[in-house]
Amino acid sequence: MILHGYFRSSAAWRVRIALHLKGLTVENRYQHLRTGQQLSPEYMAVNPQGLVPSLILDDGTVLTQSLAICEYLDEQYPEPALLPSDPIARARVRAFAQVIACDIHPVQNLRVLKNLQARGQTQDDTQSWARDVISSGFDALETLVNSQSRPFAFGENPTLADICLVPQLVNARRFGADTSGWTRLLEAEAACNALPCFADALPERQPDAE
Amino acid sequence: MILHGYFRSSAAWRVRIALHLKGLTVENRYQHLRTGQQLSPEYMAVNPQGLVPSLILDDGTVLTQSLAICEYLDEQYPEPALLPSDPIARARVRAFAQVIACDIHPVQNLRVLKNLQARGQTQDDTQSWARDVISSGFDALETLVNSQSRPFAFGENPTLADICLVPQLVNARRFGADTSGWTRLLEAEAACNALPCFADALPERQPDAE
Repeated sequence: MILHGYFRSSAAWRVRIALHLKGLTVENRYQHLRTGQQLSPEYMAVNPQGLVPSLILDDGTVLTQSLAICEYLDEQYPEPALLPSDPIARARVRAFAQVIACDIHPVQNLRVLKNLQARGQTQDDTQSWARDVISSGFDALETLVNSQSRPFAFGENPTLADICLVPQLVNARRFGADTSGWTRLLEAEAACNALPCFADALPERQPDAE
Repeated sequence: MILHGYFRSSAAWRVRIALHLKGLTVENRYQHLRTGQQLSPEYMAVNPQGLVPSLILDDGTVLTQSLAICEYLDEQYPEPALLPSDPIARARVRAFAQVIACDIHPVQNLRVLKNLQARGQTQDDTQSWARDVISSGFDALETLVNSQSRPFAFGENPTLADICLVPQLVNARRFGADTSGWTRLLEAEAACNALPCFADALPERQPDAE
C-alpha cells in the first residue's frame, strides 16, 4: 500500500497511527501542503479533493478521507480493534472522532486560515479563530469522556477517538489554546504517546519533517 | 427515541432521512438554532457541543454526531442498509459522506458564517465564502461518483452518501452555487427526492419550519 501524506497534516497523522497500531507497513509519498504540491494535476488525479491522506491499495484502488480509511483498515485487519464491539460504545467513539474530524479540524486547517488571511484577517485574527474553534470543541470532548474508564479516551485500549485526539491536541498547543482544563484528554494523550505506534507517528519523526 | 433537531440543520436532516429509510418513528424536539436555543443549559446538558442532532435512546443514552448516529442505526436496524457490504464500496461511501460532513458543511455552517460577520465580513463575503467551499467540494464529489452505477450516488439504492448529498445540495443553492456541472449528483438527488423517505424529511415539511 502507498500512503500519500504530509508530516504535519492531522488527517494523514491519524492514518499513520492506525497503520502502526495494525502493524502494517506502507510506502510513503509526500505532498508538501505549504507549497501546494497536493494541487498538482498528478495528485489531483489520485485525490480529486487535493487533500491528504490518500491510501492506495495494492490493486490500485484509492481510498480517501482519514476516518473512512481507518474504518476500512479496522474492517480488513480487525486486531487490535479501533472501535469497541458494543454498539453504543462504538457510536460514542465515532462521535468523539467526528467532533474533531468534522467540527474542529476542518474549521482551523491551513486552507481555511489562508482563506481568512486572503480576506484581510491578520495573523493574530487567524490564531484566535483557530484557538476558539479548538477550545470550544475540546471543552465538549472533555465532557464526553469524563465518565469513561481510563487511561485512554474510552477505556483500556486506544481507539479511533485517541487517533484523532493526539494530533488535534498538538494543533491546540500550536494555536496557543489553554489545555490545562482538559485533564482527562491529557491523560489519554500521555497514555497514547507512551506507545511506540503513536510515538513513531509523530510529525517530527517523519522523513518529510522540516 | 427522541430526536433533537432543527428543520434547516443539514446534520439533523441526515438523521431524519436515515430514520425514515429504516422505518423508525421518533419523538421530535426542536432547538431553534437562530435564536440560540441549542446553547441553553438544559440542552448543553444533553449535548455538550450545543449542536443538533442528538438522538436519545429509550434507555436515556444520548448519541451525537449525525454520521455516528446513522452508523448506529445501520448496525441496530440493518435493513435497508445505509452502507454497501463490500469493504471498498463501504470505504467509498463513507469517504463521500465525509467530504460533505467534514470538509464542506462545517466550514459553511451558521456558526462559522456568524463568526465571519463578527470579524467584519459582509453578507456578500460570507455568501462567497460558503459558495467557494461548497463548489470546490462538490467538484470533487462529482468526480468521486462519476464512474459509479446509477441512479443513486453509489448504485441502485440510497446510501449514507445520498443522505449527506441531498441536504448539502440545498445549501449549495441557498448560497448561489452553480450546480449545473454536477449532473451525476443532481441525478442522485432526483432519485432520492422521488422516495417518500427523503421527501418527508425535507425541511419545509417539518413542524418547526418557518
